[in-house]
Amino acid sequence: MKIRHAPSLKILTIILLIAMFSCEETTNKTKVLAESTIQGHPNLVLTKAGVQEIKSHLGKLPLFDKSLAETKAEVDAEILNGIEVPIPKDYSGGYTHERHKRNFIIMQKAGVLFQILGDVKYARYIKDMLFAYAKMYPTLPLHPQTRSYARGKLFWQCLNDANWLVYTSQAYDCIYDWLSKEDRDFLEKDLFKPFADFISIGNPQFFNRIHNHSTWGNAAVGMIALVMDDDSLLNRALYGINDDHLKEGMKDNDGGLIKVKGQKAGFLANLEEPFSPDGYFTEGPYYQRYAMYPFLILAEALQNKKPELKIFEYKDSVLVKSVNALINLTDEDGDFFPINDAQKGMSYYSRELVTAVDIAYHFGSQDPELLSIAKKQDKVVLDDTGMSVALGVKEGKEKPFVKTSINLSDGPNGDQGGVGILRNSNFELVLKYTGQGSSHGHYDKLSFSYYEGGHEVIQDYGMGRFVNIQQKGGGNYLKENTTWAKQTIAHNTIVQNETSHFHGDFETGSLHHSEKYLFDASNPNLQIISAVENNAYPGTEMHRTMALIKDNDFENPYLLDIIKINSKSKNQYDLPYYYLGQIISTNFKYTKSDELKSLGSKNGYQHLWKEGEGKSDSGTAKLSWFNKQRFYSLTSVVSNDDDLLFTRIGAHDPDFNLRNDPGFIIRKKNSKNTFFVSLLESHGHYDPINEIATNAFSNIKSLKIAYSDDDYFAISIETVNDEKKLFLFSFKNNSKTSKHTIKINDRAYKWIGAYKLTEINK
Amino acid sequence: MKIRHAPSLKILTIILLIAMFSCEETTNKTKVLAESTIQGHPNLVLTKAGVQEIKSHLGKLPLFDKSLAETKAEVDAEILNGIEVPIPKDYSGGYTHERHKRNFIIMQKAGVLFQILGDVKYARYIKDMLFAYAKMYPTLPLHPQTRSYARGKLFWQCLNDANWLVYTSQAYDCIYDWLSKEDRDFLEKDLFKPFADFISIGNPQFFNRIHNHSTWGNAAVGMIALVMDDDSLLNRALYGINDDHLKEGMKDNDGGLIKVKGQKAGFLANLEEPFSPDGYFTEGPYYQRYAMYPFLILAEALQNKKPELKIFEYKDSVLVKSVNALINLTDEDGDFFPINDAQKGMSYYSRELVTAVDIAYHFGSQDPELLSIAKKQDKVVLDDTGMSVALGVKEGKEKPFVKTSINLSDGPNGDQGGVGILRNSNFELVLKYTGQGSSHGHYDKLSFSYYEGGHEVIQDYGMGRFVNIQQKGGGNYLKENTTWAKQTIAHNTIVQNETSHFHGDFETGSLHHSEKYLFDASNPNLQIISAVENNAYPGTEMHRTMALIKDNDFENPYLLDIIKINSKSKNQYDLPYYYLGQIISTNFKYTKSDELKSLGSKNGYQHLWKEGEGKSDSGTAKLSWFNKQRFYSLTSVVSNDDDLLFTRIGAHDPDFNLRNDPGFIIRKKNSKNTFFVSLLESHGHYDPINEIATNAFSNIKSLKIAYSDDDYFAISIETVNDEKKLFLFSFKNNSKTSKHTIKINDRAYKWIGAYKLTEINK
Repeated sequence: MKIRHAPSLKILTIILLIAMFSCEETTNKTKVLAESTIQGHPNLVLTKAGVQEIKSHLGKLPLFDKSLAETKAEVDAEILNGIEVPIPKDYSGGYTHERHKRNFIIMQKAGVLFQILGDVKYARYIKDMLFAYAKMYPTLPLHPQTRSYARGKLFWQCLNDANWLVYTSQAYDCIYDWLSKEDRDFLEKDLFKPFADFISIGNPQFFNRIHNHSTWGNAAVGMIALVMDDDSLLNRALYGINDDHLKEGMKDNDGGLIKVKGQKAGFLANLEEPFSPDGYFTEGPYYQRYAMYPFLILAEALQNKKPELKIFEYKDSVLVKSVNALINLTDEDGDFFPINDAQKGMSYYSRELVTAVDIAYHFGSQDPELLSIAKKQDKVVLDDTGMSVALGVKEGKEKPFVKTSINLSDGPNGDQGGVGILRNSNFELVLKYTGQGSSHGHYDKLSFSYYEGGHEVIQDYGMGRFVNIQQKGGGNYLKENTTWAKQTIAHNTIVQNETSHFHGDFETGSLHHSEKYLFDASNPNLQIISAVENNAYPGTEMHRTMALIKDNDFENPYLLDIIKINSKSKNQYDLPYYYLGQIISTNFKYTKSDELKSLGSKNGYQHLWKEGEGKSDSGTAKLSWFNKQRFYSLTSVVSNDDDLLFTRIGAHDPDFNLRNDPGFIIRKKNSKNTFFVSLLESHGHYDPINEIATNAFSNIKSLKIAYSDDDYFAISIETVNDEKKLFLFSFKNNSKTSKHTIKINDRAYKWIGAYKLTEINK
Repeated sequence: MKIRHAPSLKILTIILLIAMFSCEETTNKTKVLAESTIQGHPNLVLTKAGVQEIKSHLGKLPLFDKSLAETKAEVDAEILNGIEVPIPKDYSGGYTHERHKRNFIIMQKAGVLFQILGDVKYARYIKDMLFAYAKMYPTLPLHPQTRSYARGKLFWQCLNDANWLVYTSQAYDCIYDWLSKEDRDFLEKDLFKPFADFISIGNPQFFNRIHNHSTWGNAAVGMIALVMDDDSLLNRALYGINDDHLKEGMKDNDGGLIKVKGQKAGFLANLEEPFSPDGYFTEGPYYQRYAMYPFLILAEALQNKKPELKIFEYKDSVLVKSVNALINLTDEDGDFFPINDAQKGMSYYSRELVTAVDIAYHFGSQDPELLSIAKKQDKVVLDDTGMSVALGVKEGKEKPFVKTSINLSDGPNGDQGGVGILRNSNFELVLKYTGQGSSHGHYDKLSFSYYEGGHEVIQDYGMGRFVNIQQKGGGNYLKENTTWAKQTIAHNTIVQNETSHFHGDFETGSLHHSEKYLFDASNPNLQIISAVENNAYPGTEMHRTMALIKDNDFENPYLLDIIKINSKSKNQYDLPYYYLGQIISTNFKYTKSDELKSLGSKNGYQHLWKEGEGKSDSGTAKLSWFNKQRFYSLTSVVSNDDDLLFTRIGAHDPDFNLRNDPGFIIRKKNSKNTFFVSLLESHGHYDPINEIATNAFSNIKSLKIAYSDDDYFAISIETVNDEKKLFLFSFKNNSKTSKHTIKINDRAYKWIGAYKLTEINK
């Protein structure tokens, strides 16, 4: 087996310096090239002027030079390795898939190196590889793997073919002028035009949607159209196919809708529809990250070749805003919150975000906060945008990117719910009250996740998929993504009668969204988000309010979680909390099961082992656990009848596809109108070296519903030191100026605005 | 609630500098003190000469100055807080326990500060606290908590009372000369003498054992004896109580033997018995760490006051050797291997190891490798030894502490088995073939654990205890420590007929130990350890051989694991591998259970959920899993009849005391003589940012037993690239010069030495 060792940075730098100092000859070549083609290519992502500018800065911008040295080392190793263009055969993770993927990535990089370093070996490498593809393509059948609703030719799905073309167009642009007209004609006739036709008019079900798949398809066709100066193709990319002959209601293999009545298509429609005015992308940050590359790279190309389109100003500069939104959708470590289908661990360190940050900086307002993210990424794109960033960093312009509390609306007009993020010190709450989020959406209205210092305290499960790990279903979505990860019970929100929101029906879910009631982060010591969901279970209204409160009687900010349910019928309601860690103590009695059965038979319940069950007769249930040397306590108002269930994920999981994480479910039975009220503390610390536990106990002595009627609600919170507070809330009026009065135990409480936290004098 | 924030280092340094520059007056005071008592105290751990030397270096040794500043800030905060000496009431983790513990730690530090900084507020603080203790002590009954076999007065066990006296003796020594004779007489009469008597003659079952408890007791009595110049007490500390009236066979509440016939007692006997000539402590590194402090601190005091004892040369300098052994018993991150009862996370960053490293450096041979550990600890003891270390570091003398493969014998004479550690790049194998290891020993003959880069690949469970986390049984040993953690099935070794080694009987276990067959780490590419256990199951001989092999056909070193079993009767044999992570694939069919039951009813089996079961008809079972972005594959030779069991810890665990970790068990039924043969690879890597899996598959195509008879054994290993190797092994002769020949398929293989890895020519 050959093991390739990455050369150290030192070596890379030396290689680069050698390359530069031995460049006299090369530079002469480049000059000849530049003079002979002053009006020509590259003009897509790299530009002739940009290349000259980059060359003048070589050796002077450490961040750029480092990225260049790394790229050169990587491409040179591949060139040594030789060209391989295998007959397509495998799913993702398999040899032919990964080889073709690597080919397009390396071609794009080789093109950049050819332009910047002027060494023709890079141009030759691209030409030879493109010729190999051009020879194969005309006779290439559909990819032999049949799982996709839109099979590609090089890859098992058109999506990956589109990836190929987005990158390869850039490589082609970089060697366009170096190629003979004959070569170009051959490549365009046998490869690029049929390729672009295949992924567009050949696959309208892929190309003509509002979906990240289509964005890739549109960008691919748009990029090659710009290189070839083919306006007809460019129109197809920007505005879609006029008559796609698709039937309404068609679905892809993830269950996503393909054709929606009256919906536009093409790149601009894809820019219009899924982004909210705040820059939130309806599929969630994981797919936003994936979609950002084609959005931004085609935007960059359009800006270079069709500046009259003013693409970066489109929809009130939504592209630049979206980069800002995306960075705000990360935890303290830069990992994306795993909303909807999302693999954990994806972060703003990904190559897509390097591109996004550089483009947003360069084509946006040169926001110095973006430079601090670029500095963490320690990498720039090798084009004008990366050079701007490297220059900004070199000049010390960066400011810290401060992630504050933020509410991001969902929907093209920002009126289809949203995501609220509350932040205080190193605690982060994410409450999701969006629309369905396209085919990657989960049935998780009003679900939340909670973080401390970049670690999950209450987790969102994410998706059921091991991306590109071939042994796990070819690296594709696993059946458990549907049977578990998308289901409501897999999330930290209300499940009625053990059925998922909208009965887990995608079309129904896509008709609705939750509604914001209020979001207010103006007082750092009491930040609040409140939202309503009335459609997930027809006849049942759910209203969740979460507040992140910093109170000096507590070591850390704590989280208050209030769910009000009003229904026309009696139902069972489950509220799970997917805590991570080991249980330390409870204030109620429970029984662990000596034999484990699953908690239910469908809608995700079949995947939960029921580990134990308890009841509390004290009015509260307190669960304390321990994780990453910290203690957590969840105190909940419960009645004597409520079931307190201990669960573990992993039942009916024949292939070990699920993580065996624990959960705690509060179950209220036979209820029409009810409240779920909980308070979550992070407290104390365990020092395993000194074996000392500090502040290991909850600070809550009692948590009670002090008042409730249709319009008002009050919770009393009492600490172990007998400090008593009341949290007052109006369901009637969310305005900041509304005046409220309620009487509790013959005492009147008056306040202004929808909510108030007040001390109770003893 | 008051939250105390630790001042930053900057502030600490400023405080220290202010303290120093405002010291003129103080210095004068100190001078007076020094001159008036030139022959006197301190002379225990600090010495008068040492203090002068320290003062002359203040402000010049960054490591020492930093430790001094931290200590000063800590003690000053406690002095502001005021003195609290509550009536004893709680178990460990509870208020009174933690308060008394903190008191003795702070008194010791205050004593040091008084000597070094000369500020009498520290002396006053100690005096006031000692007086509070002296007033309480004469009427103090036994501690109200009754769980211990030797209840203390301040604490629930004498052990903690002894801790108190070891530290407090040092504080007393520091203010001895500053106190009036009258004060000293009062303290000695009402506190120190009755205290020393209570934990010695008052509790011979605690004081007169060979056990870490007794070491603490002996050291406590020895320390106060040295301060008070009480030779009779000192004799008791060094040589034990002559006639202790203890019955043979008495046990403590952990099941440990108290009285063994003919066994000596006292500090010197405790130094003699549990340490092997290599410095291995029979209870294992976790308790060695705990015991090191009293061993070393009394040794330091004896060296200062009774240099004629030459305590550091005792038993061929075993104390210094033991520090070296202890550092070698840590993983790459400095965490101790959790052999026997041990809480994970304890490491050479603990305060005991700071003391140990400083003393071993100062009183040993000034080993420059110890300085690199001290530098990582970033802390020194505030005495002569810490100053030596700080000076060494300041002068840049340190060399990296290189942990290589090492075999550490067990037993007073080094002939009771041992622990073998094989290391290659960042892989570490620990094979345990020791004696029982006193009352903290586990029934885990020939068990192993395996590490990569400081992470566990195959884990040793450690102990069933959350030290000082009060909610978990007062922070004491949990019943699951006995029912699970100590049992054989909790370890990565052979279980016969679902019973533990020695039937889990401590006395039987204590009569035996495993035997080394060979240990050879001379060839870094093939390191090997081999050991035999013939007593765990009478009539059954088990011989385990593990080799850590670096072969260029593999990305990383791999582990070969061969167990030969010969029995007089037919039995069932289970071999568990407690891997950590998520299963990626297997090469055999298995069925997951839809309802979980425990794997058995006793001997630890009651705590294992049986998650699934499979069989292989291909001759091998391959299990691949994924952990911390790395892939692992275990390939085992199995027969069609062998059961392949998937387990998870956590059944019959009513209080959530166990970690729910997975396991894989190979079960051979109805066998007399058999082999377990496995090969464990670490391979590849997953990059969650780029979503790329490299080298995600096992490199083993086949693993077969090519030959076996009573004397010889051969395994053939074939890689996916058809490289074939034979591992040849002799059970007959372990000498390096022995000559061997066997015939396989009519071909003769000859080799010299007990083992050989050879290529097979095709």
